[in-house]
Amino acid sequence: MDVMYAYMPESGELFVKQLKKSSILALYVIGSTLTSTIPGISIAGANPEATLYTPTGDAEYLFYGKVVSFNVIPTTPDGIPTPAVITRASLELLNIPFFVVNAGCYVRPKIPFIDVNGVVGNDIRTGNAMKYDDVIKIYENSKLFGEKIGKLANTVLIGESIPGGTTTTLAFLLALGYDAKYKISSASAYNPHDLKIKVVEEGLKNAKLSIEEARNDPLKAASKVGDPVMVAMAGLVDGIIKSDAYVLLAGGTQMSSVIALLKHKNVGLDKIAIGTTKWIISDRNSDIVGLISQIGKVPIIATTLDFSKSEFYGLKAYENGYVKEGVGAGGTALVSQIKFELSSSDLANKIENEYKKLISKK
Amino acid sequence: MDVMYAYMPESGELFVKQLKKSSILALYVIGSTLTSTIPGISIAGANPEATLYTPTGDAEYLFYGKVVSFNVIPTTPDGIPTPAVITRASLELLNIPFFVVNAGCYVRPKIPFIDVNGVVGNDIRTGNAMKYDDVIKIYENSKLFGEKIGKLANTVLIGESIPGGTTTTLAFLLALGYDAKYKISSASAYNPHDLKIKVVEEGLKNAKLSIEEARNDPLKAASKVGDPVMVAMAGLVDGIIKSDAYVLLAGGTQMSSVIALLKHKNVGLDKIAIGTTKWIISDRNSDIVGLISQIGKVPIIATTLDFSKSEFYGLKAYENGYVKEGVGAGGTALVSQIKFELSSSDLANKIENEYKKLISKK
Repeated sequence: MDVMYAYMPESGELFVKQLKKSSILALYVIGSTLTSTIPGISIAGANPEATLYTPTGDAEYLFYGKVVSFNVIPTTPDGIPTPAVITRASLELLNIPFFVVNAGCYVRPKIPFIDVNGVVGNDIRTGNAMKYDDVIKIYENSKLFGEKIGKLANTVLIGESIPGGTTTTLAFLLALGYDAKYKISSASAYNPHDLKIKVVEEGLKNAKLSIEEARNDPLKAASKVGDPVMVAMAGLVDGIIKSDAYVLLAGGTQMSSVIALLKHKNVGLDKIAIGTTKWIISDRNSDIVGLISQIGKVPIIATTLDFSKSEFYGLKAYENGYVKEGVGAGGTALVSQIKFELSSSDLANKIENEYKKLISKK
Repeated sequence: MDVMYAYMPESGELFVKQLKKSSILALYVIGSTLTSTIPGISIAGANPEATLYTPTGDAEYLFYGKVVSFNVIPTTPDGIPTPAVITRASLELLNIPFFVVNAGCYVRPKIPFIDVNGVVGNDIRTGNAMKYDDVIKIYENSKLFGEKIGKLANTVLIGESIPGGTTTTLAFLLALGYDAKYKISSASAYNPHDLKIKVVEEGLKNAKLSIEEARNDPLKAASKVGDPVMVAMAGLVDGIIKSDAYVLLAGGTQMSSVIALLKHKNVGLDKIAIGTTKWIISDRNSDIVGLISQIGKVPIIATTLDFSKSEFYGLKAYENGYVKEGVGAGGTALVSQIKFELSSSDLANKIENEYKKLISKK
């Protein structure tokens, strides 16, 4: 079993130890922000408009191994496949129950899903991402659901799919006064930091919110420059922890917004860990440890899953800095490794097979 | 613990035995059929139009102890409260996780709920209650969700809230060739059998479906004269059983449509029991045993919960043949009695307290 402890290794090891004997279930939170349609912001879709359909496609793919609402699997403009391929292969291995939470999708997926009365987020340049009432509703509904689901497992894994989510994370962290510039990841190998900063600064200017106000009411900050997924994830964590379960946040630098939101709502962080990929940890264009360490002592654990020997261009691209993370890929892969004591190459083989199935269906 | 075995007592006792040591979770399926707005068909609402809002109110009340979407608790025209009062008091006692499944609500409840892409059912007099494709979708989504949720507990309780549901049950059973006339219950003390039969016969005439066709494809029969809740419940059961869990169908004579649907889809019935109230068992205007015994060997177990000593008119009315069942009241009460070895009067006291809280909030 190849696992990487990137931050707070002792707590990370304890977390892995409890995970080993834990009953686990997984939630994948999907939603959209119109921010993803700004050209250049997101490659989580074949073109800017298509990014709005990616979360729906990801969710359907997790359930059925194919997308049913439209005739396309989410890819980058270059055809690099969604990380949901990793997630699905790991879930098939794990055979754990998983559910999709709709925090505000552009298109409702054709699967059974948890509805938390979500909304699609506006372009954050407006400084008015969501109505405050909607944010409260999403948070409270997610918390209520989290409380109930937290009674059903020792550990709940939570992943996400929201194109544009790293940009909203940057905005949210800056609103709260964190040093986040040039630290946020991207699905692209060429992280468009300067474009993101420009978008975010326009949003922050229009939001007219002081750091103090944002820290006193992080849901207000989310309503100004956040997105529905960060709100739902934080609400879920709040509820799950209330029911005394552990949480593995399965995602990359985006998870810093969830943790910051929880911290400034005075929710304890000690039952939380982040599970991600080595592609995030080793990314030279972002700095997950530099982000999380500003916020709280949340261990970061990564799968060392590696596609450098893959026969497929689409997977090999991950080794060249594309995609890196998403749809809970890193965390779900990590859990499957921990549960089955799998080496990274064993897991990579499983995922290759899943990918073969996917492309043969085309 | 006072429990009544009304049908297949030996299997019933075995079911109770496994329930005692079972982990349990509960689902409440809500939905609407426009059939409930035909004057005289349903008293599950202050007036025929109001019956469309009852499932939403019931679901919100289960979560919050009050209705949030509108300013009224579901009652009969005489002010007799929804059986959700019994359900909520029992759930508070049990402290088990429960979820609401929206099979097709007229108004989306302001709670986190499971969405199975449901639809509101048409007036069954049209012989065209739902599009066939929608019925398939509801069934398949519910089955998928059932499979996942079935991994999380040994026994899943499933209740329902759909005004007009006994009328659609009558139509569905007649479509399948069962002897169901005058055997279906009603929330009214004065069961409007003849009105129901008239409505149902109009629907069956317009449906133009032979008994053989209906038995070969029960989902088609449901699409003609059924409702979304019976479809979702059957799908849930199918999935839950596939994951090897037991099912307690928490409801009255309506449960016969769910069991018939499953039987004619060749789903095994041996892990299912019905949990209901003594008000259903002892009702002289309906015959649950006469219905179920035609379909399959599914044990019927009832709580002997009794409100004859209640200080409240609204609860005492249950002893005079009003309401009787709904929102999984009987089954949920039964489980709380079994788990805590409660006598009927202990449980009645708990419910009185819950009812006091409810009316003091007004």
